[in-house]
Amino acid sequence: MADYPAIPSRLSIDDAAVLLIDHQSGLLSRVQDYGPDEFRNNVLALAEAAKFFELPTILTTSFEQGPNGVIMPELKALFPDVPFIARPGQINAWDNEEFVAAVKATDRKQLVMAGVVTDVCVAFPALSALREGYEVFVVTDASGTFNKSVRDAALMRMQQAGAVMTSWFAVACELQRDMEGLARLLGDRLPAYRNLITSHQAVANR
Amino acid sequence: MADYPAIPSRLSIDDAAVLLIDHQSGLLSRVQDYGPDEFRNNVLALAEAAKFFELPTILTTSFEQGPNGVIMPELKALFPDVPFIARPGQINAWDNEEFVAAVKATDRKQLVMAGVVTDVCVAFPALSALREGYEVFVVTDASGTFNKSVRDAALMRMQQAGAVMTSWFAVACELQRDMEGLARLLGDRLPAYRNLITSHQAVANR
Amino acid sequence: MADYPAIPSRLSIDDAAVLLIDHQSGLLSRVQDYGPDEFRNNVLALAEAAKFFELPTILTTSFEQGPNGVIMPELKALFPDVPFIARPGQINAWDNEEFVAAVKATDRKQLVMAGVVTDVCVAFPALSALREGYEVFVVTDASGTFNKSVRDAALMRMQQAGAVMTSWFAVACELQRDMEGLARLLGDRLPAYRNLITSHQAVANR
Amino acid sequence: MADYPAIPSRLSIDDAAVLLIDHQSGLLSRVQDYGPDEFRNNVLALAEAAKFFELPTILTTSFEQGPNGVIMPELKALFPDVPFIARPGQINAWDNEEFVAAVKATDRKQLVMAGVVTDVCVAFPALSALREGYEVFVVTDASGTFNKSVRDAALMRMQQAGAVMTSWFAVACELQRDMEGLARLLGDRLPAYRNLITSHQAVANR
Amino acid sequence: MADYPAIPSRLSIDDAAVLLIDHQSGLLSRVQDYGPDEFRNNVLALAEAAKFFELPTILTTSFEQGPNGVIMPELKALFPDVPFIARPGQINAWDNEEFVAAVKATDRKQLVMAGVVTDVCVAFPALSALREGYEVFVVTDASGTFNKSVRDAALMRMQQAGAVMTSWFAVACELQRDMEGLARLLGDRLPAYRNLITSHQAVANR
Amino acid sequence: MADYPAIPSRLSIDDAAVLLIDHQSGLLSRVQDYGPDEFRNNVLALAEAAKFFELPTILTTSFEQGPNGVIMPELKALFPDVPFIARPGQINAWDNEEFVAAVKATDRKQLVMAGVVTDVCVAFPALSALREGYEVFVVTDASGTFNKSVRDAALMRMQQAGAVMTSWFAVACELQRDMEGLARLLGDRLPAYRNLITSHQAVANR
Amino acid sequence: MADYPAIPSRLSIDDAAVLLIDHQSGLLSRVQDYGPDEFRNNVLALAEAAKFFELPTILTTSFEQGPNGVIMPELKALFPDVPFIARPGQINAWDNEEFVAAVKATDRKQLVMAGVVTDVCVAFPALSALREGYEVFVVTDASGTFNKSVRDAALMRMQQAGAVMTSWFAVACELQRDMEGLARLLGDRLPAYRNLITSHQAVANR
Amino acid sequence: MADYPAIPSRLSIDDAAVLLIDHQSGLLSRVQDYGPDEFRNNVLALAEAAKFFELPTILTTSFEQGPNGVIMPELKALFPDVPFIARPGQINAWDNEEFVAAVKATDRKQLVMAGVVTDVCVAFPALSALREGYEVFVVTDASGTFNKSVRDAALMRMQQAGAVMTSWFAVACELQRDMEGLARLLGDRLPAYRNLITSHQAVANR
Repeated sequence: MADYPAIPSRLSIDDAAVLLIDHQSGLLSRVQDYGPDEFRNNVLALAEAAKFFELPTILTTSFEQGPNGVIMPELKALFPDVPFIARPGQINAWDNEEFVAAVKATDRKQLVMAGVVTDVCVAFPALSALREGYEVFVVTDASGTFNKSVRDAALMRMQQAGAVMTSWFAVACELQRDMEGLARLLGDRLPAYRNLITSHQAVANR
Repeated sequence: MADYPAIPSRLSIDDAAVLLIDHQSGLLSRVQDYGPDEFRNNVLALAEAAKFFELPTILTTSFEQGPNGVIMPELKALFPDVPFIARPGQINAWDNEEFVAAVKATDRKQLVMAGVVTDVCVAFPALSALREGYEVFVVTDASGTFNKSVRDAALMRMQQAGAVMTSWFAVACELQRDMEGLARLLGDRLPAYRNLITSHQAVANR
Repeated sequence: MADYPAIPSRLSIDDAAVLLIDHQSGLLSRVQDYGPDEFRNNVLALAEAAKFFELPTILTTSFEQGPNGVIMPELKALFPDVPFIARPGQINAWDNEEFVAAVKATDRKQLVMAGVVTDVCVAFPALSALREGYEVFVVTDASGTFNKSVRDAALMRMQQAGAVMTSWFAVACELQRDMEGLARLLGDRLPAYRNLITSHQAVANR
Repeated sequence: MADYPAIPSRLSIDDAAVLLIDHQSGLLSRVQDYGPDEFRNNVLALAEAAKFFELPTILTTSFEQGPNGVIMPELKALFPDVPFIARPGQINAWDNEEFVAAVKATDRKQLVMAGVVTDVCVAFPALSALREGYEVFVVTDASGTFNKSVRDAALMRMQQAGAVMTSWFAVACELQRDMEGLARLLGDRLPAYRNLITSHQAVANR
Repeated sequence: MADYPAIPSRLSIDDAAVLLIDHQSGLLSRVQDYGPDEFRNNVLALAEAAKFFELPTILTTSFEQGPNGVIMPELKALFPDVPFIARPGQINAWDNEEFVAAVKATDRKQLVMAGVVTDVCVAFPALSALREGYEVFVVTDASGTFNKSVRDAALMRMQQAGAVMTSWFAVACELQRDMEGLARLLGDRLPAYRNLITSHQAVANR
Repeated sequence: MADYPAIPSRLSIDDAAVLLIDHQSGLLSRVQDYGPDEFRNNVLALAEAAKFFELPTILTTSFEQGPNGVIMPELKALFPDVPFIARPGQINAWDNEEFVAAVKATDRKQLVMAGVVTDVCVAFPALSALREGYEVFVVTDASGTFNKSVRDAALMRMQQAGAVMTSWFAVACELQRDMEGLARLLGDRLPAYRNLITSHQAVANR
Repeated sequence: MADYPAIPSRLSIDDAAVLLIDHQSGLLSRVQDYGPDEFRNNVLALAEAAKFFELPTILTTSFEQGPNGVIMPELKALFPDVPFIARPGQINAWDNEEFVAAVKATDRKQLVMAGVVTDVCVAFPALSALREGYEVFVVTDASGTFNKSVRDAALMRMQQAGAVMTSWFAVACELQRDMEGLARLLGDRLPAYRNLITSHQAVANR
Repeated sequence: MADYPAIPSRLSIDDAAVLLIDHQSGLLSRVQDYGPDEFRNNVLALAEAAKFFELPTILTTSFEQGPNGVIMPELKALFPDVPFIARPGQINAWDNEEFVAAVKATDRKQLVMAGVVTDVCVAFPALSALREGYEVFVVTDASGTFNKSVRDAALMRMQQAGAVMTSWFAVACELQRDMEGLARLLGDRLPAYRNLITSHQAVANR
């Protein structure tokens, strides 16, 4: 059998923390590799999954007082008590000591990251965390950027350095490991799956 | 100056009724020309606009007890008191006397239509209504079907017969004629516009 | 109200005939605006619908002995007894007297047409039939050609001349007017719909 | 020969006026059917062409004090002295008396229109102007909206009512009628054409 | 039956002339709605068809001494003796008296047009010819322009004015009316069809 | 010469087993990265290939009694006697002891996997199997998910861990190693190849 | 600095041989990830480059007497004297002893490969050659298959095993290392580059 | 934790040099994987970033006197004093001694590269530099080529050899590490970001 490369470990409810980076009202309008309905849904789905599994979660933003805008109000409302690092200037969140301290305080080694824009606000801290020995799981569909071409380059770069590419639905399923408990989350954030549930219950309840 | 064709009249709050056709849990899973997040948002946006402007609205479904599934629960919840014609068999809603009677009872001549699937459940009653002298406005982005190629054929057919192609946002704006009143609706159903509002208010309220 | 253009009449089981033009093994390999699985399914779905509704049907081919190849064997098997005009040379089937005679012998005024390639083998007889006063319904998804750009030009040309653009599913639904009878056909040719039926029956039969 | 429909007249430097509608900093971020580089270039190219040919030009915006944002500064700088109607509330610019008065004051019958978003801010005044007997030329590539599907519906609607679809380059060429004078404009706004000029001059000047 | 619009007449070897407009080495590099291999093949296929059927053909260019570049050498070589109007300045070829005189001298009423760029060099003379009562057949796949969006607007504009959209293969087939004679042309310009011929002959000649 | 990475071994009829995971009627309606005709054909083609080569095959599903729906009836009919593990709850099939036991009982080290959805039902057991030293061949075109973006992330993740990306046709060819025996399978599941066979036999049999 | 992976050596006129695999008239009609004009051009461009640089070249086909069809006549004409292995049955050319012997006889270690279909006829011998220590350069644009999704899987698989992805133009340039000598080849196979040459010479020769 | 591959170091203002390769007026017209407005903007944005951070920068071209054309005049104007190596013949800039000497003279180990065409003029020197131990950052959106398929192969090849894929915006942000200083650059080269700034300042300055 071939000598395969090392295989990243499995995402676990005991080892993971979630970092939501720069989902700000101004920057969000720069996301053009996903439609706005789909993207908003993806970000909130990831956030709700983090909440559902009670994972340590960290919010961060950059220059909220400038054109980047303020954090998505739904995120702030969902996580009123988690560390929220409003960076004054550093582009790479990992350059902010308070942010790194918050990450270290979680005592987790698997970092689930999403943000805007993918090639900068996600890629830079992802690479920094990898350099320090963390496992990084990039939630590609809760991360957005200028266009598909820029996204492709960013994903290639992060994969090359060892980050794992994934999606919010896969994160939720990988953490849960059992489907039943996911019902509410899937019903709210997967309209297509909700249709299945609706059809099924209408007949089952007859 | 050229001899232009007749120009359809302007959509008006006093002349319009809204027909929501066969948005059922089973059929919705057949919509592949829009993503599920985007499509659900578009349908609810149109429905909420109909409610907001207090337009006469009619719901109809076909074969709810079969694989087509039941009506989107959100639609039923939004319009608990409007005519809801659950057709036993007719594919073309206009072949159902109760449905046509409900339309006539609105005493409106502009019919705003959306449904699933576009080429059948929208196109057939649209053509029937045009034959009886109604003006028909097809909300293309709240109507879905199997693929882009089938949609294109359906839109060409309806346009050829005189139907007006439009979108839920244009319907809302055409009815309102003044932007201020639309704020809540836009904020809820246009995530991108909500971002603008969020950014703007954050600065304006400083 | 606006002065709308004339509206094509409704496709009817009593008025329609089906013309299947040049679906030949060689020509089929030139179809690149649909995937081969999807296209074969569409052609057979239309053919089976014609059979199901017992519509007069005419098969025709050109140059079967040359690289165009022979007719799809499934079509020949499905319609062993209908007129089958193997044209020796005329590109436009309407230039073949035997073909036109067969059409006239159906005594139908609504011609449902599909074929390969769309811009020639469908468009030419469609235009000829329109010139002689027939109503023409082009089944766009059972007609194929070299690429999307050539198809677009062909559909624009036929629409401009008054032909109605439609799809095999819309044809089947428009003829049936009642959904129940279509179950078998839809189950066989709409894998997605079959999934719905399977799900539904599994629960309903419990 | 066939009985063709009436043919819109030719765009002329003596008959045309240009209406630039709601190209505002907030609304521009909602344009997703063109890339931001391309769209900004197209809008400025149309504006510079209007200036170059000294066409009567009218600027208008809606709710500048709200999230729609202010007019593109380049447009304001390019046309410091033309009528600039900052509409307080009307969505359809044609509902604003001052705007209509400004249009009428140009004494032109060909209205070249572009704006954001296509389906509302362009389509509504285009239809209103057509109803009053104006010829309308819609500059599709200097008009933007939420997505391709919404654009398609908007263009179909305007075409159905008699509006002419065109692009900024075609407008510039149709007004000029002679290529030499366009050199500067093309050099600045068509990077690809500038490359040709650069190559050509490098050799020609040797 | 519905009251269909007038139907354009059939393209005929006795009534048609071919106008090849501004296929110049510089302008060709601006064509981005077709790949360069495909586009060159389409233009030469149309030209060879014109030659094959001995249709009156007219070549024209604009500013050959500037960055637009010189005419495709293959076209010049294929038609050494037809009228070749190298326009000094007029963008719309129909504004050049010599060109119009050449068209009139053909004594044909069906004008088959192709050129670069579609929205200007094809659309303008197409509209001019339509206004003078000619039938115009636009060969869309032998005409190219900046991008798909600009092409769409140009085709909508020409169709609205009564021009017929077609492709080089449909033109060749419509003129020939009988497939056998087309073998050589198809073999040279349809690589896919040549494969069929190769396969067929290999077996047939065994 | 460069120091290349280890090269996965060749898929072999003696070493391979096939795992078909969660192809259920409800989940199938969530597949939007392939058209339904194409996808159904791909899944059945892979299944028929497994049958044709008499490979050990394992079927598994999750929550058949819920909205996920029941297994594709064609799969059940094709493999009446193979292990069929209807998992009550585990999302990752590898978390089900019965499933892993069935895999181990095959005594094969090459696992050919396909399923719905790619990013969860395929990726999770693929990674688990790789961790235990199996070689994994992912049949990408018999595996489907929500959209192309989610698929891309899933394929990148599995490739990174050493899985081999392939397609049903490549699997069939790699196992067979000789083309003649594949004729029936290809004829049934590759409509395009069947056309070639039809053309060829028509001439060869003359 | 990071510990980069081994870097494949540079393609060299002294080390490279070219393998053209199964470019047969029947199989070519299965290529749908490239347009037929573009693909034929790419294959001939690669072949002409092999000829131009006098690289050892090997032709091979499978089942020429069946529906796969015969080799592209242009390839046979271009290389009348090179080894041409018409394989009776082996799908993987590397399973054919005569083919492997011909490769070994070239005494080259860099194998430039292209063929139809990518996932089988190219991927299988590519993997086999890599296993035996050859360097493999896959000419992706002279290799074709059923669709983009299948191609993607094939390229990922070959890259994973160490093959280098390239294109015919890059191969020609990498072998030449000096642009002047490539003029004729580029002029014939890059229509876009020929336009540049034409423009340039027209001015330079004045 | 898994044994991740080595992670490329962080791009730094002290270690990086910028190589702009063959952005020439003729070659630029061959770029078809980006629109011309977008591509010109990307190239100038990268160049202005290099200037802004005062990075050592090297310009090079090939055959300026031939159809490749002369360097983009804006680049020459922006960098009047940097090394400009007009290569007479070598396709791979790294084959030119003067070029390599200029690179070595910068005494930098991180090479940021962009050029036209990606698969040749960027890929070849990128691979050469990697072989000599440099770190290579490929600015994918300031590099262009014939089509998306050729680009994909080129990026896969460079990634395989250890090059880092990035974009001009990520380069600018990675060098700056602090957002404030980037304002002017972003305002000029990111029209979408400029809109945010405009909106923000309009409100903030009230």
